[in-house]
Amino acid sequence: MIAISVLYPKTATSKFDMGYYRDRHMKLVDEKWLDMGLRGSRVMHGVPGPDGGAPTYEVITVLEFESMDAFGKAAEAHGAEIMGDIANFTDVSPILQFNEIVA
Amino acid sequence: MIAISVLYPKTATSKFDMGYYRDRHMKLVDEKWLDMGLRGSRVMHGVPGPDGGAPTYEVITVLEFESMDAFGKAAEAHGAEIMGDIANFTDVSPILQFNEIVA
Repeated sequence: MIAISVLYPKTATSKFDMGYYRDRHMKLVDEKWLDMGLRGSRVMHGVPGPDGGAPTYEVITVLEFESMDAFGKAAEAHGAEIMGDIANFTDVSPILQFNEIVA
Repeated sequence: MIAISVLYPKTATSKFDMGYYRDRHMKLVDEKWLDMGLRGSRVMHGVPGPDGGAPTYEVITVLEFESMDAFGKAAEAHGAEIMGDIANFTDVSPILQFNEIVA
């Protein structure tokens, strides 16, 4: 199992449509990838901390895939469509990272 | 329930002792905070992607707390000790962020 983290930076002027992201983009991700090795996903929305400071990232999403190989095949099959949908809800580019799950 | 993300940047020269982090630091976190509202944690270790690119973060950890208020009390009671332990396993400062769990 691997975890892919997708971090959407928040800036003073960045836009992010959370409704579209949750109801349409993540639905698209599930439709395309749940039968290609996607085991589950977690979406976290950055909020101000106790000190009122703005979050670094608007959204942090973690996708769990059964293997790097499975993700490679899933990305080859549907990555262009899924990445192409990003412009429909934000004007920032996410930082993608691959991770092994330690605990 | 809230999620606190802790992101440790990776640079060309940064140091990170994963064994200490996993076996001692996270154990300290559990010992101090499991009875103060910590519901669970997930530790992810950044690895090179399919294209061989280095991860942005050495480690991404997510702590789930029952509420922002519970975290505030936990941080007040043990935050100094836990934050003070960071220098024992890395020379970088983590980026902390508070998140609401969307899905």
